[in-house]
Amino acid sequence: MRLKDFGLQSGINEVIVITKGEKLNTAPIGIIVEDENRIEAKARLYPSHTRENVEKGSFFIANIVRDPLIFAMSAFEDLGEEFFESLNPPIIKDALAFCEFEVRLKGLFADLRLLRGDIIRKEVRAINRGFNAVIEALVHATRFVKNQSPELEQKIRECYAIIEKCGGKREKQALEIIKEKTGIL
Amino acid sequence: MRLKDFGLQSGINEVIVITKGEKLNTAPIGIIVEDENRIEAKARLYPSHTRENVEKGSFFIANIVRDPLIFAMSAFEDLGEEFFESLNPPIIKDALAFCEFEVRLKGLFADLRLLRGDIIRKEVRAINRGFNAVIEALVHATRFVKNQSPELEQKIRECYAIIEKCGGKREKQALEIIKEKTGIL
Repeated sequence: MRLKDFGLQSGINEVIVITKGEKLNTAPIGIIVEDENRIEAKARLYPSHTRENVEKGSFFIANIVRDPLIFAMSAFEDLGEEFFESLNPPIIKDALAFCEFEVRLKGLFADLRLLRGDIIRKEVRAINRGFNAVIEALVHATRFVKNQSPELEQKIRECYAIIEKCGGKREKQALEIIKEKTGIL
Repeated sequence: MRLKDFGLQSGINEVIVITKGEKLNTAPIGIIVEDENRIEAKARLYPSHTRENVEKGSFFIANIVRDPLIFAMSAFEDLGEEFFESLNPPIIKDALAFCEFEVRLKGLFADLRLLRGDIIRKEVRAINRGFNAVIEALVHATRFVKNQSPELEQKIRECYAIIEKCGGKREKQALEIIKEKTGIL
């Protein structure tokens, strides 16, 4: 069993992590992989519901997802159960794979160790710059809602232009969510 | 047979197009899809070897590829035969799928009509912002080598920062190529 068996490669892997408190919590997290042939990884875990849940003993399950709308929604709020195709283990609809990790918190980081994983489905998908721009816009947008700055607004608007030009239907739905949440129209 | 069967979705799909003149020509092209359930698509085809080859009757075969190094190399020069796993039809190593199109040139655009296609392999891969930044850097870099401007240089440097932070091995190899070709170190 290696990280790369489930789509996690060297570098930072943007996934949706599901933890459980009173209800399921979903959050985009970057899983940092140094060696994709091993089972050890890391993640930054700032104070958050994800971190609180882990401190209280929750599982930590990464879903490998490529749906821009799922990324946009879970960046701002928890996905309801209707977005899952399985609740045990928690698997978001159309997720490609899931990985469960053991977590050891270390300051603002967490040491992760792969416990189990499974591939749900594989796919073929060409690169879409609009999709990429959704991911980039979300990085800026989640900062912007806490700390509005003209620099962030400018970066978000640059992403909008790429999403408008290159995105498909799902990317444009994601764009509407970003606009609503940031107020940058 | 539909475009989406081979990984082409609504929006602009960044693929590597292979045509043949005296030798194989490889170029990143954006395939514009309005309805992924149909077989018709479009592409901008500026004066280029790809266009010349089409005018002389070459086939037009898109490879769906997700290797950052292949994108970086084919943005600046043709891939040699050693980068292919098949020459007839031309399939780049590790390509996910290929599609052959009939092409009708219409001004700077081309009307495309899917003739045949095949899936070579499917995959599971988490999103990597470094990979996305390689694609974005290449868009700017191919403009920069023709028209050096401080604005483009700034955008390319922003991509570098993301590739350095989030990319894996292949993204960092792609970065070296972009640095070499642009002279932006």
